[in-house]
Amino acid sequence: MTMKNPPFTPIPEETLTACLAQLAFTDQGLVPAIAQQHDTGEILMMAWMNEAAVRESLTTGVVCYWSRSRQALWRKGETSGQVQRLVHFRYDCDRDCLLLLVDQTGVACHTGRRNCFYHEVTSDGIKVISKVEIDPKTLYSK
Amino acid sequence: MTMKNPPFTPIPEETLTACLAQLAFTDQGLVPAIAQQHDTGEILMMAWMNEAAVRESLTTGVVCYWSRSRQALWRKGETSGQVQRLVHFRYDCDRDCLLLLVDQTGVACHTGRRNCFYHEVTSDGIKVISKVEIDPKTLYSK
Repeated sequence: MTMKNPPFTPIPEETLTACLAQLAFTDQGLVPAIAQQHDTGEILMMAWMNEAAVRESLTTGVVCYWSRSRQALWRKGETSGQVQRLVHFRYDCDRDCLLLLVDQTGVACHTGRRNCFYHEVTSDGIKVISKVEIDPKTLYSK
Repeated sequence: MTMKNPPFTPIPEETLTACLAQLAFTDQGLVPAIAQQHDTGEILMMAWMNEAAVRESLTTGVVCYWSRSRQALWRKGETSGQVQRLVHFRYDCDRDCLLLLVDQTGVACHTGRRNCFYHEVTSDGIKVISKVEIDPKTLYSK
């Protein structure tokens, strides 16, 4: 992974605690997180975080989500190599949604597409608007 | 409102039905929707839609959400004038998150900021990174 940006500075415990106290988690202890490529503005994906995932992301600088299907921490890219390096961590006015500005290695989507939002609803029907860049078999055979 | 883009073409009933059948709504009948300014990539806000909100947005071309606090359709901008004109309507690989490319009139955030993601967690603490552009008293006094 090339380091186009300054190395990540871990967030101090005091700030991390303040952030976790501010965030409005759901009854399941989760908050939605939008991942956006920091330099192009491309929206890559949306996933969920719990407190542990927020804490890990803000201390390591590598994005970690909570997998609702697996009910486990999801270190994005751990299997596929398609990691997200954290550049900026923001939250919204209601404190119930995160915006992660990241540097995505390779592709964000498990289908091998750069981003997950590849269905578009048009007046001519529902279209697939982006192509597979990496064969998912390659991504998950490591 | 200036019309910088082609007029919206309403989505035909057949496509709308197919879209609603595809989307994975939560147990509460909702799906999260990310609103992004179509020409700059700025992420404006995240809110929720139910079937009726999806249907209204795709037939009128003006974005309508579902307000969880008011338990009612939320015609964004109806009170404040800060409407979102729909440019593209996309959904993700898991069919459980929407991406709306919109043309935002004025400001998206109820605080009078252009977008809702104005808290940033940094190694120097939590910062407010954008300023109020329109006094909220002006927005909601009409």
